[in-house]
Amino acid sequence: MTAWTTEISAAAKRIAPYARRTPVMAGVDLGLGRPVDLKLEQMQHTGSFKARGAFNTLLSSEVPKAGIVAASGGNHGAAVAYAAASLGIKARIYVPEIAGPAKIALIEEAGADLVVVSGVYAKALEEARAYEAETGAMQIHAYDAPMTVIGQGTAMMEWEEQGLAADTVLIAVGGGGLIAGALAWLQGRRKVVAVEPDLAPTLNRALAEGPDTVVEVSGVAANALGATRIGSICHGLAAEAGITSVTVPDEAITKAQAILWRQLRQLVEPAGATALAALISGAYKPAEGERVAVLVCGGNIAPDPLAAPVAGRRAKPQG
Amino acid sequence: MTAWTTEISAAAKRIAPYARRTPVMAGVDLGLGRPVDLKLEQMQHTGSFKARGAFNTLLSSEVPKAGIVAASGGNHGAAVAYAAASLGIKARIYVPEIAGPAKIALIEEAGADLVVVSGVYAKALEEARAYEAETGAMQIHAYDAPMTVIGQGTAMMEWEEQGLAADTVLIAVGGGGLIAGALAWLQGRRKVVAVEPDLAPTLNRALAEGPDTVVEVSGVAANALGATRIGSICHGLAAEAGITSVTVPDEAITKAQAILWRQLRQLVEPAGATALAALISGAYKPAEGERVAVLVCGGNIAPDPLAAPVAGRRAKPQG
Repeated sequence: MTAWTTEISAAAKRIAPYARRTPVMAGVDLGLGRPVDLKLEQMQHTGSFKARGAFNTLLSSEVPKAGIVAASGGNHGAAVAYAAASLGIKARIYVPEIAGPAKIALIEEAGADLVVVSGVYAKALEEARAYEAETGAMQIHAYDAPMTVIGQGTAMMEWEEQGLAADTVLIAVGGGGLIAGALAWLQGRRKVVAVEPDLAPTLNRALAEGPDTVVEVSGVAANALGATRIGSICHGLAAEAGITSVTVPDEAITKAQAILWRQLRQLVEPAGATALAALISGAYKPAEGERVAVLVCGGNIAPDPLAAPVAGRRAKPQG
Repeated sequence: MTAWTTEISAAAKRIAPYARRTPVMAGVDLGLGRPVDLKLEQMQHTGSFKARGAFNTLLSSEVPKAGIVAASGGNHGAAVAYAAASLGIKARIYVPEIAGPAKIALIEEAGADLVVVSGVYAKALEEARAYEAETGAMQIHAYDAPMTVIGQGTAMMEWEEQGLAADTVLIAVGGGGLIAGALAWLQGRRKVVAVEPDLAPTLNRALAEGPDTVVEVSGVAANALGATRIGSICHGLAAEAGITSVTVPDEAITKAQAILWRQLRQLVEPAGATALAALISGAYKPAEGERVAVLVCGGNIAPDPLAAPVAGRRAKPQG
C-alpha cells in the first residue's frame, strides 16, 4: 500500500519548517563488538520523535477555535504543547501530578496552558475529556491516529535520505506510533525489530494473543513505553510485516543508557536506550555480517541532570 | 603556508580508522533569535576533540619501548590513555587527586596505567617527569606541539567536508590546540572567533600583552580551559590571522550549558558550552545576515550524571 509512503513524503514537506532534521552516525563503535548506525532523534524538539506527529497532525487538521487538548505527563504532552505554541494554537494540557517535576517542567517550558491534576493519569484524562466536551477543543492521540503515525514515519524517511545503510533497524515500542511509521515508510525494504521492556511487552503479547490484549506495565521505561494496549494501526502493520518482536530486561536498558553516555556522551531516558538494549541483552542476535541500526528516540531523563543546581539557586535562605 | 593543510589532510587519513566522525547540524534553532550551525565534537572518543591530536601524535611518532607518559587530570589524559590503549601502546598517566572521581574514572576506563598522585597538578607533572627520565617514555603535549595541532585541525577539515556553510566559527580556547588547528586548516577562508572565560582569558591577554603573558585562571571551565600561558603555535597563528578574541562570564557559560541541554538534549561540560556563551552574553554580536557556527568541544561534565546510581549500587549494605 503506497498511500502510506505518499502521505509520509507529504508530511515531511509539511513539517520541514518546524521539525528538526536530527543527526545520524554510521558505524559507531560502542564497544559491542559490532558497529551500529544511529539516529539521534532524542535531539528532536522537546526531546523525542513525538514532535513530528504533533506537527503533522496540527498542520493537516482544521483546528477548532477552542484549540487542542491533551492529557499527558510525558513526551506526547510536551510535543503537543510545543507544536501548538509554535503554530500559535491554544493548547490545554492536563498533567497528572505523578508525572513528576521534570516532565511537568518540560511541558510548561514547551508553552502550554498547563493544568496539574492531583493523582494519576486517568484523572487527568477525565478532566481533559470534560474540557473537550465543554469547549469543543480537539484531542490529539499519542500514537493510534493516521496523521500521528504518518508524522512519525518521516523519521525513517529522513534516515534513508541521510544514507542509512543498515539491513536491520531496531526500534523501541510503547503504543507503537514510531514503529508503525517506520513500517509504513519501509514497506518491507529493511528488517524492523520491535524492542519492548520485559515489563511492558505490549506489542509482543498482542502479536501472540491478539490485538486487544491488555498488559500490565511497569519498570524503568514505563512512563514512555507503558501503553497497556498496542495501537491498532501498529498492530496491523506489524502483523502484516511479520515483524521480529523481542523484549529486554530493565537491567539491559539501564546498561544501554550507561553505554550511550560513556561511549558517546548521549544522555537519554530509559525508553531512548531500549532499542540498543536488545543488542546488549542478546534479545536480538544479528547474523554474521548483518548491519544493524538503532533509533534513539527519547532523551527526557529524570531527574533532570541540570535541575539540582537550579533548585539550589531557588532555595530560600534559612533563618 | 599550505604545509599545514597538507599535514592536516594527511592526519585525517591517518586517524580515520580510530577517530570518530562527529555529527554536525545546520541551522539549529536554539531560541537565540538566529540559527546556529553545530559540530558535536564532544561525541568524539573520551568526550572531547583531544583524541584527534593524541591519535595523530602516536601514529606519526616512533614510540619508545617504554611507551608514553602524561600528567593530566582532564580530557587530554583521557584521550592519550584511550589512544594508547587502542594502539596497544603502554601509557602511564599521572593524575592529581584534585581532578576528582569523575575525571579519574574516565581516564581509568580509557585503559591507562593510572597513578593517582595526592595533591595538585604540579605534583603529578613532577612524578611524570621522573618516570620519563627513568624509563625513556615519551611525553605528549596537550596543545603546543605540531602533531597535536595538526590532529585537532582535522575537526575543522571534517566539518567543511560535512558541508559547513557558516561565515564565522566560534571556538573555545584553553591552551589553544583546537583553535590553532582550525586556523591552520582554514587559512583565512572563514572568520574565527576565539572565546574564553572572563576568568581564564589566556589568549585574549596574550594578544594584547605578548605571547609570554601568564594569567591567573579560575571559574567553571578552568579544569579544561585553564591554561595559564597560551601555546606558542596558537599565538602565532592567531596573531597572524588577526583573530577576533572575546571573553564571557561564567554565568553565560552555565546558561549555554542549560540551553544545549534543554533545547537539544546535549549535556556538555562548561568548556563545551563556552563558545556558545559568546552568542548568549553578546560578547560576540554577529552582523545582520552573518551565519555563525559553534564548535561544541567537550562533554565531560562533573559530577557524572550517571555516577550516583552506580555509587549507590556499590555501597556496602549496612549492619
